[in-house]
Amino acid sequence: MTDIVLIGTGNVARHLFQAFEPQPDLDVIQVYGRSAKGLDFFKDKTETTSELEALLPATVYIICISDDAIDKISQALPFRDRLVVHTSGSIPISALAPHQRRGIFYPLQTFSKGVKTDFKQVPLFLEATEQQDLNLLKSIGRAISDTVFEADSDQRKQLHLAAVFVNNFPNYMFQIAKELLEEKNLPFEVLKPLIKETANKLESMSPNDAQTGPARRGDKKTLETHEKMLKDPKYSEIYRLLSQSIQKHYGIEL
Amino acid sequence: MTDIVLIGTGNVARHLFQAFEPQPDLDVIQVYGRSAKGLDFFKDKTETTSELEALLPATVYIICISDDAIDKISQALPFRDRLVVHTSGSIPISALAPHQRRGIFYPLQTFSKGVKTDFKQVPLFLEATEQQDLNLLKSIGRAISDTVFEADSDQRKQLHLAAVFVNNFPNYMFQIAKELLEEKNLPFEVLKPLIKETANKLESMSPNDAQTGPARRGDKKTLETHEKMLKDPKYSEIYRLLSQSIQKHYGIEL
Repeated sequence: MTDIVLIGTGNVARHLFQAFEPQPDLDVIQVYGRSAKGLDFFKDKTETTSELEALLPATVYIICISDDAIDKISQALPFRDRLVVHTSGSIPISALAPHQRRGIFYPLQTFSKGVKTDFKQVPLFLEATEQQDLNLLKSIGRAISDTVFEADSDQRKQLHLAAVFVNNFPNYMFQIAKELLEEKNLPFEVLKPLIKETANKLESMSPNDAQTGPARRGDKKTLETHEKMLKDPKYSEIYRLLSQSIQKHYGIEL
Repeated sequence: MTDIVLIGTGNVARHLFQAFEPQPDLDVIQVYGRSAKGLDFFKDKTETTSELEALLPATVYIICISDDAIDKISQALPFRDRLVVHTSGSIPISALAPHQRRGIFYPLQTFSKGVKTDFKQVPLFLEATEQQDLNLLKSIGRAISDTVFEADSDQRKQLHLAAVFVNNFPNYMFQIAKELLEEKNLPFEVLKPLIKETANKLESMSPNDAQTGPARRGDKKTLETHEKMLKDPKYSEIYRLLSQSIQKHYGIEL
């Protein structure tokens, strides 16, 4: 039996908890959170505490809190001889420095409150300072996910950067599109099938082959018309830069 | 029975043909294509021709060819008293000028060869110069799609622009992410669950609420680190511009 203590009560902690819960060999024996409100979600299901001094001895402590707080909470953990891991894409393993046995348990996914996630589909990237701890993290990871990779801090940083490009930036594009439709009294809903298909297409073709649109075709007339239609200079700048970059990528003369 | 002639043999023509085929009240009596090769897909299923003079009399002619060729083919159609429509998002209805009875049948989707599309999910945007033709287009549209809208050329142009933001630009972001991972020997596959979830999230929240990431949080340290990690100046410029725009959007001080 692997005894787990979760440090944090946000989306990552909740989704991890729900993934661990049905596993016979994994036991979340405690959840730590600063505020009683954050612990509400967990309190009928396991022990909870707001006092670091009250932490139970466990096989592994999984820190699921915001990046800037990892360093501080790591310092404050009362144990020094136990495995401590964090779940951040961008923070190096050295942030857990006071702990000899440290590791990373990074799920590459966007988690939202109230949105159910099939954890089996979430790729996990693992790192540990000691081989036996890496083995333990792998066995925990494989219990909840179909995709478990070893990745060093350098690779993990790159994954996090790539995630910004496939999640944060596209989502911002969705916001811009929503505004554009609202200008003409059209509902954002009509774009959802296209958004889904854009993602699903990658099952059968590379993004390089899936690229379409006026920039890909070098259709200067449409590119000009579109730029003029964008009244917000912020948006026309984005349109221009991305279109130019796509044209360069495909060797289309500007 | 509505007799349809399709002008064009590309992805839109193929997907429309497949959507019309099972409909008892719709009959694609002929497909026109310049090249024999393009007509191969259709030739066992309906009549095909490469001669405009050989076009059959039909209820409606649906032009599914590239934007720049619409004007020319419209001029060359041998009939003047029949309904002629095109399927383009960006070309105005006036491009069909020689025809009294003209219309638009615009499917808002990205179609790819060999990728099956559930046409029921594809929103259709319709326009016609005469009310009875609009009614006819609506009945054709409703037979194959669950979402049929009337939209004037101005709205349609905006839809097409919005589609660039939700399809072309995100797909380009996927290309950049793929390159970034390959730099560190990581497979693009690991990003696919995140890409799908980014699209699926919109079922339960607005893109405004779904926005996450360092720009949204105003996490200057990560923003700086990421910019430095992007060796291609084209990509760091994109990163900077989009991150600044997100920060402005959420009122985060730069």
